[in-house]
Amino acid sequence: MGLGSFVKLFMPKDRIFYSLFEEVTSTLVEMGDTFSKALSESDPEKRTAMLKSLEDLEHKNDETTHRIFIELGSNFITPFDREDIHALTTSLDDIADFIWGSAKRLTNYYIHDVDDTVQGFADIINRSIHALHTGIKELRNMKNLRAIIEACVLINSLENEADDLFDDAMTKLFSTPNINPIDLIKKKDLYQELEIVTDKCEDAANVIESIIVKYA
Amino acid sequence: MGLGSFVKLFMPKDRIFYSLFEEVTSTLVEMGDTFSKALSESDPEKRTAMLKSLEDLEHKNDETTHRIFIELGSNFITPFDREDIHALTTSLDDIADFIWGSAKRLTNYYIHDVDDTVQGFADIINRSIHALHTGIKELRNMKNLRAIIEACVLINSLENEADDLFDDAMTKLFSTPNINPIDLIKKKDLYQELEIVTDKCEDAANVIESIIVKYA
Amino acid sequence: MGLGSFVKLFMPKDRIFYSLFEEVTSTLVEMGDTFSKALSESDPEKRTAMLKSLEDLEHKNDETTHRIFIELGSNFITPFDREDIHALTTSLDDIADFIWGSAKRLTNYYIHDVDDTVQGFADIINRSIHALHTGIKELRNMKNLRAIIEACVLINSLENEADDLFDDAMTKLFSTPNINPIDLIKKKDLYQELEIVTDKCEDAANVIESIIVKYA
Repeated sequence: MGLGSFVKLFMPKDRIFYSLFEEVTSTLVEMGDTFSKALSESDPEKRTAMLKSLEDLEHKNDETTHRIFIELGSNFITPFDREDIHALTTSLDDIADFIWGSAKRLTNYYIHDVDDTVQGFADIINRSIHALHTGIKELRNMKNLRAIIEACVLINSLENEADDLFDDAMTKLFSTPNINPIDLIKKKDLYQELEIVTDKCEDAANVIESIIVKYA
Repeated sequence: MGLGSFVKLFMPKDRIFYSLFEEVTSTLVEMGDTFSKALSESDPEKRTAMLKSLEDLEHKNDETTHRIFIELGSNFITPFDREDIHALTTSLDDIADFIWGSAKRLTNYYIHDVDDTVQGFADIINRSIHALHTGIKELRNMKNLRAIIEACVLINSLENEADDLFDDAMTKLFSTPNINPIDLIKKKDLYQELEIVTDKCEDAANVIESIIVKYA
Repeated sequence: MGLGSFVKLFMPKDRIFYSLFEEVTSTLVEMGDTFSKALSESDPEKRTAMLKSLEDLEHKNDETTHRIFIELGSNFITPFDREDIHALTTSLDDIADFIWGSAKRLTNYYIHDVDDTVQGFADIINRSIHALHTGIKELRNMKNLRAIIEACVLINSLENEADDLFDDAMTKLFSTPNINPIDLIKKKDLYQELEIVTDKCEDAANVIESIIVKYA
């Protein structure tokens, strides 16, 4: 038994949710960082290896997610509404899934040119995830409400940025003369997957905001 | 403080949900009407301007939606089940999002020919939204259950019409000899977005129906 | 009044949910079997007729789904949490919708060659549905928990198989030299629809697992 598990034994049962949510956003931070670093890597083989390493993180996150649902089913007392725990867990899990989905599209579609749009999305996603991690850590004691609210506001504005980035990229794609249809399909699909990551970050931020409204 | 806000001060707290839902469906009616009018406009520049004006309505609706979630978090008493308010709010918000998404596809993909399929969808969407508005207004006093049920039945049958319209359009697209793949992608994507609007109208109608079952 | 309805009159009110869920998974089993058989049919006309017969089953399932929601709205006592009944019903209904969606793509897109990927999906879907049916039938008395858990574990592992099948198929599609873009669009869209069926099976299995955790 690791120290972590030992400490958990002595925690009031409902405190475990804070630890599990922090575990999830830690993994997401690692995924966001790995994704960004992979896209800055110029060597295609190294980049592919880094992108493929996201699968392990996604699996790790699946396990924590599963653990949260088990705790939710077996704990009568929860630190916030069951429906909020459910919605928050689902949207955080979706973030991991769609980052991994984006990585798979980059490798499976043989997309070698990491354009400004993809870089822009990676940057927005990374900033959103770091903000989520901050917000989640502050939920534990609810002492710094302002920090939580600022994180949620930032994530909402990053999602708007992502929408504009997506719209501009689509407009550009469909106005490129003689674009190869297969290339268009690849990029359109990748951008859509990346845009969904930011939607899911916003969903998570909205749940956090609704938890604040009820409990603070 | 406008007269509206003044009146709200003297309303029992849970009555505010009726007003907010009516505000949402009023905005949707405006969106549906604007969308239909834009598609009948033959001048491409005027049409684009009308389509772009939908963004403001979508933002306005986002604010009302946000307001409903805040009220839901802070009000202990609600006129119907919290889960139904949540589901209804989400599906109505999705209607606005996907109408605006359809408008963006028309402009960003440079789709200049408004074909019969697009016109057909606009008509179905507009009729569904007007029915939703009627149903929502009748929720306030629950005196005319028949009108609410008729609205829900109509929306369900309009969604079936939209399914058939979509299937026929797909069959036609994929059997068009020598169709330009980029054109096919544009239209397929636009039709899918339009079809989702009608799915979301049906989702909203189903929530309204389940509210009726429980409270009437 | 059939014998079934007669028996139901004398059942405790909340037992009806078991019967309705079994009705749903029976229809799904029939859909999965019909879908598999259609794909093994070499005569294109016969195959199309079999695929189109799925529409009636999908409609039948819509009616049972609707019935469950009505019972949920009017029954105060339910055999498990209302939110679990809602989530289970929705994911089972989605399975029927996406099987029918896959069948429509095969016919509307004029996809005549039933390749190994499509066959593989049909096989995975069919095994998942049979496992769901077993799990649902065992929910009624909760005596054979092991059988329920085994069904859920199997469905999760089948969903992983489907993910790999999808990734391999995408990699192959996008590395096919000189592939016709329209053919790529058709197949990509069909595979995506089939993959979603397995996601929805996993969603249903996850709800069943969470019911077990709470009530067993």
